[in-house]
Amino acid sequence: MADWTEADLATAAALRDRALKGTSAYEHVSSLVTEVGPRLAGSAGDEAAVRWAMNRLGKLGFTGVRTQDVLVPRWIRGSTEVTLLGPAGQPLVAATLGGSIGTPEDGIEAAVVEFATLDALSAAQAGDVKNKIVFINERMERTKDGSGYGKIVKNRVQGASVAANLGAVALVIRSVGTSDERFAHTGRMQYDVNAPRIPAFSLSNPDADTLSRQVKANKQVRLRLKSTARELPPAWSANVIGEIPGTDRANEIVLLGAHLDSWDLGQGALDDGAGVAIVVEAARLISRLDRKPSRTIRVVLFANEEFGLSGAKEYARQIGDEHNRHVLAMEADTGIGPVVRLDTQVAPESLGAIEKMRKAMEPLVIEGGSNTASGGADLGPLRSLGVPVLDPVLDASLYFDVHHTMNDTLAKVDAKVLDQSVAAYAVAAYLAATKQGNFGRLAPVPFNR
Amino acid sequence: MADWTEADLATAAALRDRALKGTSAYEHVSSLVTEVGPRLAGSAGDEAAVRWAMNRLGKLGFTGVRTQDVLVPRWIRGSTEVTLLGPAGQPLVAATLGGSIGTPEDGIEAAVVEFATLDALSAAQAGDVKNKIVFINERMERTKDGSGYGKIVKNRVQGASVAANLGAVALVIRSVGTSDERFAHTGRMQYDVNAPRIPAFSLSNPDADTLSRQVKANKQVRLRLKSTARELPPAWSANVIGEIPGTDRANEIVLLGAHLDSWDLGQGALDDGAGVAIVVEAARLISRLDRKPSRTIRVVLFANEEFGLSGAKEYARQIGDEHNRHVLAMEADTGIGPVVRLDTQVAPESLGAIEKMRKAMEPLVIEGGSNTASGGADLGPLRSLGVPVLDPVLDASLYFDVHHTMNDTLAKVDAKVLDQSVAAYAVAAYLAATKQGNFGRLAPVPFNR
Ligand SMILES: [Zn+2]
Ligand SMILES: [Zn+2]
Ligand SMILES: [Zn+2]
Ligand SMILES: [Zn+2]
Repeated sequence: MADWTEADLATAAALRDRALKGTSAYEHVSSLVTEVGPRLAGSAGDEAAVRWAMNRLGKLGFTGVRTQDVLVPRWIRGSTEVTLLGPAGQPLVAATLGGSIGTPEDGIEAAVVEFATLDALSAAQAGDVKNKIVFINERMERTKDGSGYGKIVKNRVQGASVAANLGAVALVIRSVGTSDERFAHTGRMQYDVNAPRIPAFSLSNPDADTLSRQVKANKQVRLRLKSTARELPPAWSANVIGEIPGTDRANEIVLLGAHLDSWDLGQGALDDGAGVAIVVEAARLISRLDRKPSRTIRVVLFANEEFGLSGAKEYARQIGDEHNRHVLAMEADTGIGPVVRLDTQVAPESLGAIEKMRKAMEPLVIEGGSNTASGGADLGPLRSLGVPVLDPVLDASLYFDVHHTMNDTLAKVDAKVLDQSVAAYAVAAYLAATKQGNFGRLAPVPFNR
Repeated sequence: MADWTEADLATAAALRDRALKGTSAYEHVSSLVTEVGPRLAGSAGDEAAVRWAMNRLGKLGFTGVRTQDVLVPRWIRGSTEVTLLGPAGQPLVAATLGGSIGTPEDGIEAAVVEFATLDALSAAQAGDVKNKIVFINERMERTKDGSGYGKIVKNRVQGASVAANLGAVALVIRSVGTSDERFAHTGRMQYDVNAPRIPAFSLSNPDADTLSRQVKANKQVRLRLKSTARELPPAWSANVIGEIPGTDRANEIVLLGAHLDSWDLGQGALDDGAGVAIVVEAARLISRLDRKPSRTIRVVLFANEEFGLSGAKEYARQIGDEHNRHVLAMEADTGIGPVVRLDTQVAPESLGAIEKMRKAMEPLVIEGGSNTASGGADLGPLRSLGVPVLDPVLDASLYFDVHHTMNDTLAKVDAKVLDQSVAAYAVAAYLAATKQGNFGRLAPVPFNR
């Protein structure tokens, strides 16, 4: 039996062409960043974002619009000051890394020791590091698939504890980002339970250049670091859920996910306002079709992706055995797009259907991909339960210029590019929700992240 | 009699080709922004910059290296906070304008009224503005010659007093800059003596977009403004002067100027580190020639261009009648280049020589220009005394992306482009310093700026 009828495929093609004519996705992002703005987990902005999402899904005609309470960490950035000491004391553009402790009130003043990589730091003698500020000066590589990020993000995540175990008093890293504009990249860092806790900062690329030039010219470079970062007790946030109900297989679910929280420095237009807009708009366009899909399309706007995925974990916990009725899950969390490749993790016997799906997107210029996709951070808990994932890979060439910086604003959102992504997600979701048969199940694995 | 001998022209060509092979100009900027960094008039950075310049000119072999004391205003930016009030309170990226007073300690909170232009504000009724925050939302146009700046910089300079005369409590303008990165542009504002003094701010272009979207969507938009800006008593700074002595007409001077001070937000790499590097390096390359020019080349690194030109005025005051021995003056203060046009203000009978000069630069792709050039801000006092000016026009297409922002860093300096500018300035200075006869004199005019 065929995966799809000719009518299904014709509807998918019409949906795609409709999206390419112009969608409301840009308007969704614009509204979110204008009415709400930054929305760090647990902040007033996060609360406002939940209200915004409830309102918007309701107004757009989603059904079953509801929240799902999620406990989230509550970290406060406070103020950050990094000063290159010298005859005049040059302020450097820096960000305290997410989760970092602050400094004592008077700050930390110490000599700087530079390392090219985390491995070089790991190999250092404690004598070279003790009582110093460790500076990891590794530049992220710009690639279309964003793979440069995964290669060096460990500097941000693990650097502080590796440095602290060698006796360092603080960590400063070159931003894990590709831009030469003067923006520092934040993002989550984590402390080893066994290491002393020291504060951790990133410098913008131009400021890392300045510091490194000073280190190379002068062995006695000193920095003064001040941060009032601190952790408050956990707060409540919520996943926001809305559905486009299926017809005769309404209890089977195609999940479209994105995250509602953002970092505090920028507006979260690309991370992940764009993802929110893509999945909301893809579902909305499907809801306007005359030929409704037989399965239900569920949009889940996850709480707290950035600070430990507690929204995604809570969603997976609350669905219980319902995970068996999640036929396929997709997430959008790499900016505006365009979608350039279709990765998956589905049963091998479904790969023929995936290829037909890709063909249905044909004018969008999307390559076939691998069947080893993770599907994205928020889908981790579902995937570990065995839910197959489709991973439309978005072009990330420019994403890491603004990702996790103050510069993540609407000015970086190109409406036409966003429409292409909406088209791809809409076609994929529609075809997943009309397909005869499912995409198999994955072998369950423990979720440990 | 010919303006130049064949040997002069051959030397100029060799000088040009030497510069194009690679100069030390990038190294000069790098050293200035790394060793000193920001250098607002009267600040510790400004003092360090004077020391840096004395050292560098000395080490490069300039003669008569000296300072000339200059009294400069001492404005302190302090901290700036602009918050778009709403359910979550969105921080906007803003800069307090140079010279602005601060706000009361608790800040200013008021409704926003938006105007498209300063003219629209001038035409407003006091009733529409009274007790409100005026927002002038005019976008600077990107042009090669930077003319978009001159068209709207009055918003920054005059906006506060126009608004205050109508009863406004503060002024907020869209940055006078072309970038869509999230940087606010500072620059000097001035108060009318007869208007009440109100604080004045700029928003980055993306933040002006956010505010304007809110104003359009919601008539009750409110901002909270906080600034600890203040004025201290004037401080001493200095012009730094160094020379490449001429041979048989050493008492005649070709002046190469740039300014040593910068705004406090960025590193002053383009404004005016690049100009400093261009004129210093052009003179240095000339000093290395076997055929020395007969006139003296004098490099003047002016104090305090940004806050009222007190360095340029002091230089003109101290030379007294010596201005008659200033044969030609040139300034570099629009970034890295390349030089694309040769404007002048010289005696009409010298225009043939200027055209020959332009031909001597030929492979650099430089157009002929007008004979109505101002020559640049720091040359104003000299020009008003009658000194002819040569104005190599630098391509300013990208300059106003970073000008007066935190993003004015070495990352924006392209060494090859800078070398082209050095080549043009070096050829012009060399030919001016070897020319038979002078460039005439201009009619003296009062200097009022
Ligand atoms: Zn994300
Ligand atoms: Zn993120
Ligand atoms: Zn300037
Ligand atoms: Zn300047």
